[in-house]
Amino acid sequence: MTDQAFVTLATTDSYAKGVMVLGKSLRNHNTSRKLVALIGPHVSETSRAVLHKLYDEVRLVDVLDSGDTAHLALMKRPDLGVTFTKLHCWSLTHYSKCVFMDADTLVLANVDELFDREELSAAPDPGWPDCFNSGVFVFRPSEDTYSKLLQYCTEHGSFDGGDQGVLNSFFRGWATEDIGKHLPFIYNMSSIALYTYLPAFKQYGSNAKVVHFLGKTKPWSYTYDPKKRALKGSVEEASSHPSFLLEWWSIYSSCVVPMLHHEHGDQPF
Amino acid sequence: MTDQAFVTLATTDSYAKGVMVLGKSLRNHNTSRKLVALIGPHVSETSRAVLHKLYDEVRLVDVLDSGDTAHLALMKRPDLGVTFTKLHCWSLTHYSKCVFMDADTLVLANVDELFDREELSAAPDPGWPDCFNSGVFVFRPSEDTYSKLLQYCTEHGSFDGGDQGVLNSFFRGWATEDIGKHLPFIYNMSSIALYTYLPAFKQYGSNAKVVHFLGKTKPWSYTYDPKKRALKGSVEEASSHPSFLLEWWSIYSSCVVPMLHHEHGDQPF
Ligand SMILES: O=c1ccn([C@@H]2O[C@H](COP(=O)(O)OP(=O)(O)O)[C@@H](O)[C@H]2O)c(=O)[nH]1
Ligand SMILES: O=c1ccn([C@@H]2O[C@H](COP(=O)(O)OP(=O)(O)O)[C@@H](O)[C@H]2O)c(=O)[nH]1
Ligand SMILES: [Mn+2]
Ligand SMILES: [Mn+2]
Repeated sequence: MTDQAFVTLATTDSYAKGVMVLGKSLRNHNTSRKLVALIGPHVSETSRAVLHKLYDEVRLVDVLDSGDTAHLALMKRPDLGVTFTKLHCWSLTHYSKCVFMDADTLVLANVDELFDREELSAAPDPGWPDCFNSGVFVFRPSEDTYSKLLQYCTEHGSFDGGDQGVLNSFFRGWATEDIGKHLPFIYNMSSIALYTYLPAFKQYGSNAKVVHFLGKTKPWSYTYDPKKRALKGSVEEASSHPSFLLEWWSIYSSCVVPMLHHEHGDQPF
Repeated sequence: MTDQAFVTLATTDSYAKGVMVLGKSLRNHNTSRKLVALIGPHVSETSRAVLHKLYDEVRLVDVLDSGDTAHLALMKRPDLGVTFTKLHCWSLTHYSKCVFMDADTLVLANVDELFDREELSAAPDPGWPDCFNSGVFVFRPSEDTYSKLLQYCTEHGSFDGGDQGVLNSFFRGWATEDIGKHLPFIYNMSSIALYTYLPAFKQYGSNAKVVHFLGKTKPWSYTYDPKKRALKGSVEEASSHPSFLLEWWSIYSSCVVPMLHHEHGDQPF
């Protein structure tokens, strides 16, 4: 399936760590699809070198420098910088279908079956469940859709200031039109569920295929003791989902850190 | 439409206050359907008298005393007392279709269009959005379904200890089968949305038709100053949705309190 790809995004070296772990987790579960990382101009050479080893394609998305409609859009709405970068995934027209995944997601099982779904498929957002969460979604690259999205963005902005607001307004039929476009929550399981409906998490959480570390504290915000295989310091906030965090850190420390050292020399990254 | 009804439930005098306000709010918005209140044996005579004025039918549901399958079920699972009482709504077979509403819901507009939906229609639960929230749902009374539900309950229990767990297990196709059975979130809008996705609440919250005060603190847990038309004391928890609470209290103080006084004499209820 060389015309289908998982696509993710990092505009900083921190988010690039997430992209590395995500890529490795997709490989570990033997995806048959291509892996594409979109990166912003501030991602370092070291990160880029590692990304090139984990991803089939690493694509620099320099919205400011692009000179196309995205540039014009950004001039009008400078607040939506990362959003425009994310929307860039629609311009990957050398793929017929893609699955976008946030840099703060982690794959726990093979999820290639997501490519059976149509644009725009996504899981509900806990919080306002008639919105989909834009951390994982199935889409079809298309220049036409891309330019319509950019235009929509510049004209209407985003009700939440990010891509999720824009995408929900643009694909506004999601909540009511086609149940096939509702990905099961286990394809984008956020730990918010733990605090708001713990019994459901206990009942269904073990089926999770993708965990999404949404919110302020990302896995790379913690520190990890590789010898003890434990998170250091206070992990209260995360105390009820340490296993997912440990899974992230296990991949990061065993696979990503050695690659970073190899590129960067022995200084800590 | 005399064969269709809104159905609610109170097993205590506190929940009965919610039932009174809900009934009044349905009347205020000119519902053309019947109103049915299921009550437990501990609801006082005063409350019952007021409920009789607001509801077309007030039905005592004494599961312990019922001598039927519900009684047997309860003997096996005494932990699920209120749950069995709620499931009793399926036995209202003199109605062809009903909408169940929790006692802690408040109607902000006419919602008779809910009767266009089929069993089991409900809105997603924020928290674990592949579960429906059982605070508002469309159902068809049926002795057959009723006994199957009771049997299911006794055999499998409830993963959350309440009716929502049982109903989600029993109607397990809800998340994946028919988008028509997904009620828009504005028919069961819980204030949890405020804390978890405020921008969506700001964008869509003004369309709310039913607000659901789910969680520990119910509207009747606050105290209200009718002269100032304001809640007394600390309302931090509720500070971002005071308008819904005020709406509840406005109905309670202007309509329900006088009815309670009339039944009970001048002592505070
Ligand atoms: O400074 C940023 C912020 C976001 N992102 C990308 O945009 C996604 C969405 O942001 P985030 O995951 O932080 O939002 P959340 O899921 O917590 O709402 C990230 O996963 C990254 O892929 C990025 O590259 N740089
Ligand atoms: O002691 C109780 C608890 C619950 N209920 C009924 O069961 C519904 C569900 O309980 P609740 O609303 O407290 O749960 P939540 O919506 O907060 O999860 C209530 O609205 C009432 O109709 C009741 O009558 N007595
Ligand atoms: Mn994210
Ligand atoms: Mn409730």
